[in-house]
Amino acid sequence: MAVITLTTDFGLKDHFIAQVKGRILTLNPSASIVDISHEISPFNLKEAAYVVRNAYSEFPEKSIHIIGINSSITPGGRHIIVKAKNHFFIAADNGIIPAIVGLSNMEEAIEIKAYTDFSDFVELETFSKVATHLLNGGSLALLGKPTQDLYNYPEQYGIISEDASQIFGEVIYIDRFGNLVTNIRKVDVEARRSGRKTQVHLRNHQIDHIYENLNDFSRIIKNESANRAALGKQIAHYNTAGHLQISIYKGVPGQSGSAETLLGMQIGSSVNLLFISET
Amino acid sequence: MAVITLTTDFGLKDHFIAQVKGRILTLNPSASIVDISHEISPFNLKEAAYVVRNAYSEFPEKSIHIIGINSSITPGGRHIIVKAKNHFFIAADNGIIPAIVGLSNMEEAIEIKAYTDFSDFVELETFSKVATHLLNGGSLALLGKPTQDLYNYPEQYGIISEDASQIFGEVIYIDRFGNLVTNIRKVDVEARRSGRKTQVHLRNHQIDHIYENLNDFSRIIKNESANRAALGKQIAHYNTAGHLQISIYKGVPGQSGSAETLLGMQIGSSVNLLFISET
Amino acid sequence: MAVITLTTDFGLKDHFIAQVKGRILTLNPSASIVDISHEISPFNLKEAAYVVRNAYSEFPEKSIHIIGINSSITPGGRHIIVKAKNHFFIAADNGIIPAIVGLSNMEEAIEIKAYTDFSDFVELETFSKVATHLLNGGSLALLGKPTQDLYNYPEQYGIISEDASQIFGEVIYIDRFGNLVTNIRKVDVEARRSGRKTQVHLRNHQIDHIYENLNDFSRIIKNESANRAALGKQIAHYNTAGHLQISIYKGVPGQSGSAETLLGMQIGSSVNLLFISET
Repeated sequence: MAVITLTTDFGLKDHFIAQVKGRILTLNPSASIVDISHEISPFNLKEAAYVVRNAYSEFPEKSIHIIGINSSITPGGRHIIVKAKNHFFIAADNGIIPAIVGLSNMEEAIEIKAYTDFSDFVELETFSKVATHLLNGGSLALLGKPTQDLYNYPEQYGIISEDASQIFGEVIYIDRFGNLVTNIRKVDVEARRSGRKTQVHLRNHQIDHIYENLNDFSRIIKNESANRAALGKQIAHYNTAGHLQISIYKGVPGQSGSAETLLGMQIGSSVNLLFISET
Repeated sequence: MAVITLTTDFGLKDHFIAQVKGRILTLNPSASIVDISHEISPFNLKEAAYVVRNAYSEFPEKSIHIIGINSSITPGGRHIIVKAKNHFFIAADNGIIPAIVGLSNMEEAIEIKAYTDFSDFVELETFSKVATHLLNGGSLALLGKPTQDLYNYPEQYGIISEDASQIFGEVIYIDRFGNLVTNIRKVDVEARRSGRKTQVHLRNHQIDHIYENLNDFSRIIKNESANRAALGKQIAHYNTAGHLQISIYKGVPGQSGSAETLLGMQIGSSVNLLFISET
Repeated sequence: MAVITLTTDFGLKDHFIAQVKGRILTLNPSASIVDISHEISPFNLKEAAYVVRNAYSEFPEKSIHIIGINSSITPGGRHIIVKAKNHFFIAADNGIIPAIVGLSNMEEAIEIKAYTDFSDFVELETFSKVATHLLNGGSLALLGKPTQDLYNYPEQYGIISEDASQIFGEVIYIDRFGNLVTNIRKVDVEARRSGRKTQVHLRNHQIDHIYENLNDFSRIIKNESANRAALGKQIAHYNTAGHLQISIYKGVPGQSGSAETLLGMQIGSSVNLLFISET
């Protein structure tokens, strides 16, 4: 059974999310609603894209994903529905949906014409009705008119240097543990590697090994003394989303320190991956 | 289908909310439970009233709203159920329910006599059972005895000056974006306006225009350079709850700054609306 | 109907929790999923044990409790399912489940062999499938092999002195209000009391009375002036979980101050209970 998911930068204190849920349940009392995240940093589309991209495909097919970031305050002011990979996405035409699913995966894109008004609160007045229409099996075509020219971000992943010797990346997300998620993806590294070794550079730090995943690191922790010795060690590894990530082994933000604080990094800080030819 | 909503100042870390949900689901496995907010500032009844007032009416008719703020530590110690506008509200007799629905809208008020005990945790031991009783279609009359003399707040909205030249208001809520919500309502301003212009004063700031809603402001943002020029601008407007609100265009708390931090305002700070006769 | 509960230290911003929920709903669209807490301090097993211990028994019988703390990074690397008190618990073999239910209450313990792989994300790849298998009525035996030698914490409750004159305890949890929860339990105090009076010592503070519960304190607040006089008073009492707790009457963290800040205490700080013979 399809699910309606919600992702916003509204936070959990205010009444906005409850209003949207109440409206959906009034329209369809058996709707299943799941929060993806409401703690997206205010107005931060890249962060929202990273979070939704990594969560949506776990939901049942035909699930409907409402993304409420910058929905009202948007030059152009269009709102869209996109069908991609057998999921539906509802958001403002501000680049978030192409960033989530990839332009080439978009099967249908509709500019919303139904349930529109001049409300400040488009997630409540428009998105909740559109989502319920789809949940009830209503057709996309009734909701608006097909559109092609969606707003789209510039390239969001790491950029290969002209001489193909490195990938210039940056931190795009910092998780609850203060781990640094970069926009350098394993698939891109492998496509460019050509048998070379890799090295990670950030500020004045150099990391010579990238673990395939965090388990590959934790497997070398055989006992309690190895565990203690590893505490605070910086680790480069691919995370479960396939991105290069810099973590501190059992680092705790505000206590022992996290990658964010110990390495002095923030969203947008540079992380570069060098390819090293063995000679 | 009716829903049980929960609003408390318990936060999301502790086990209290899960206990209440578990109890309700044990009593009625098909109960639909929705969180309105658990991030109400500790003991802050006005904040809770503002949040629930703006959310409850979106839920299906006959929904049951549990409000757990100061439920145990209350002089008098009474707990009540109120039926208003075809919704049910369960809370301590501490003024919160009249503040949510308005005294004149209360159809029935019951002092709870069923499921009472001396537990510290009245939301778990009493409110969850009362709510499930109502959800299962049980009658109000079985839960206690009718009561009239409910505890009631003093006036909570902005006060008109004797010469009708201004409304004295204050900040009653600060949302996740640091926007300042006042207790001056659009309905009261319009009722008093008599064709005069309006002006907003807070600390040493004067704002000469009140936008009907935030969209009326964002509609003047036609392109990216207008967007950049507007960043950080202070805006007076009516919010989706009908209250006068002071916002900073795309202000981010902790980064570019919010209305709260940039204007040096907090809960309780004065905001006055002046009526100006054109001469 | 059984429920699947989730408790982790993942926080609510990241995509991890939504992934797990989406996976469970894909496997069983009618699964009822309830969050216990995702705000457990990173890697803090004691905190997680306290929270789950106080919440799980409110859920319907045969509910399935997933605890995702240190699930991947664990020497030994075993994952287990335990049946206790007609509930199921799924976690790493890191001591958390015995700490929740007590070793003597464990009816069955299974080392998970099904749905295992080398993923970094065991809550998604293994725990969600195991939980759905159990929710669907599948047998424990199919999921792995019985095991006895579970990892177990050292004693976690307050320790009686050799001369039985006091219980040495510590702060194990600080709730949203900054109240200090100790590992000294009422049942242990009563078992050792032998008619003696009790006294609580923490840092340079001495508290001569322990209220049976917080209501016993609030009942002495008869009117508004008594309420004002009591503001900020430190209170020793047993909390709803049966633990000795130090609270500040209506203390607000960051404003009027909480027990944590006013008394300068933190997780691990000593709290001792003295037995005083009347002479």
